[in-house]
Amino acid sequence: MNPSEKAKKIVLDLMMENDAFSKWMGIQIHDVGIGTCTLQCTIKSEMLNGFGICHGGVTFAIADSALAFASNSHGIKSVSIETSISHTKTVQAGDFITAIASEKHLSSKLGIYEVILTNQDNVIVAIFKGTVFRTGKEWDV
Amino acid sequence: MNPSEKAKKIVLDLMMENDAFSKWMGIQIHDVGIGTCTLQCTIKSEMLNGFGICHGGVTFAIADSALAFASNSHGIKSVSIETSISHTKTVQAGDFITAIASEKHLSSKLGIYEVILTNQDNVIVAIFKGTVFRTGKEWDV
Amino acid sequence: MNPSEKAKKIVLDLMMENDAFSKWMGIQIHDVGIGTCTLQCTIKSEMLNGFGICHGGVTFAIADSALAFASNSHGIKSVSIETSISHTKTVQAGDFITAIASEKHLSSKLGIYEVILTNQDNVIVAIFKGTVFRTGKEWDV
Amino acid sequence: MNPSEKAKKIVLDLMMENDAFSKWMGIQIHDVGIGTCTLQCTIKSEMLNGFGICHGGVTFAIADSALAFASNSHGIKSVSIETSISHTKTVQAGDFITAIASEKHLSSKLGIYEVILTNQDNVIVAIFKGTVFRTGKEWDV
Repeated sequence: MNPSEKAKKIVLDLMMENDAFSKWMGIQIHDVGIGTCTLQCTIKSEMLNGFGICHGGVTFAIADSALAFASNSHGIKSVSIETSISHTKTVQAGDFITAIASEKHLSSKLGIYEVILTNQDNVIVAIFKGTVFRTGKEWDV
Repeated sequence: MNPSEKAKKIVLDLMMENDAFSKWMGIQIHDVGIGTCTLQCTIKSEMLNGFGICHGGVTFAIADSALAFASNSHGIKSVSIETSISHTKTVQAGDFITAIASEKHLSSKLGIYEVILTNQDNVIVAIFKGTVFRTGKEWDV
Repeated sequence: MNPSEKAKKIVLDLMMENDAFSKWMGIQIHDVGIGTCTLQCTIKSEMLNGFGICHGGVTFAIADSALAFASNSHGIKSVSIETSISHTKTVQAGDFITAIASEKHLSSKLGIYEVILTNQDNVIVAIFKGTVFRTGKEWDV
Repeated sequence: MNPSEKAKKIVLDLMMENDAFSKWMGIQIHDVGIGTCTLQCTIKSEMLNGFGICHGGVTFAIADSALAFASNSHGIKSVSIETSISHTKTVQAGDFITAIASEKHLSSKLGIYEVILTNQDNVIVAIFKGTVFRTGKEWDV
């Protein structure tokens, strides 16, 4: 299995397959690469907050799943240390969100990722940054 | 209505009552004060990720609800600008999480809050920091 | 004066000219655009910490100056709300640092900027993210 | 040497003694404990920015020194992974700043610290959060 196939196997078969919350959110994996992934999700009415707009926890969770998938795609089990998000545009029920994770830094112990979330009009709705600790334990694929 | 009663009315009747996602999570409001609140939530199996532990988006969402409630309790509509979270201990299905929001700074335009999340053993599971923009628009109570 | 000339005038004549600390650091302004700037700085021995490497406050300060210049270049006085930095590679005395600020989001009240710092070998040494509040007050140029 | 004496020896003799930038800033170590420290610093005119107020890099640097001292006080060499700061009140030349670092979390690999900066009127001027990686290498005391 080459690294690209391994990345897909880890994310699709081992992570997403068992990820109950990502499934509840209806997250679709559009693409997986080594150190990157693209997720898509349609905002449902159960995801709204008291202002009638998408709860910040939902957009964070989409980004956090993208972080987990992108950082584990190298084959080393990686866990989030610190994450931050800025919400730049209101998200409504029915919006179709795309989250693209890209790797900004990778060392033996740490990885830093940016996840940009856009809506169906290609407007940025949130900017997420995440740092992971690379445990050194390999995924068994 | 005094400020404390107003805080409770905004959070309980106007925010939580309409907050579909906080309801889905099963968030209970244990206490509301002026600039503070305490939430409680039991982690369900639908909230787990591909590692079989609580998805980071769930603990973030609990903290984010606490931020929204605490910052809006002053009677001024407030929206999140930037939030960050560090997960310090694994959260399991069945864990009973308490989130306490406290106000670190308040000016006419901005508020900064810390939310500490603990489990049933009183161990800190996450540390959250949030900055809100105070829009100047009053809640109609 | 067109917007580009105005940006340069604000940053070079009104901000940098009076910025004692940026001058102490020896910051050079390589380029200024609308919502962007590029700074350069050579690390001096007075900037080292107890490990004998560049103090994190110095690289932060270079990035923070870049944030201030980029965000004020629009002609509206802007002040930092929240900033974060991740140091990804050790910086030594004699290293020549380039900081490039780019605008990730701009609304009437807020701006979000990323500043990437690289060394003379074009290796990323720090990743900085800053959020500013746009006061609405214009620079008098 | 007991842990408290060891903490003081590491911070005072091994770190601060060789920390050129903290010395340039005029940082005084008021107190050192295990996982904590208190620093003090008077803001000089060389530390001002183009607005004529204290450069954000200076207050960050004071906090970052506090983070380094507090996290290394356990005797394990620790390096910053991710830090953030919110400036809550303008700092002027002549202001006397106190920075108190406290430990929010400690595991074998990671530590999380908060540093609160106040001025001579005991008003909070900045709130800093820092995460360090504990390398496992011991300080040789």
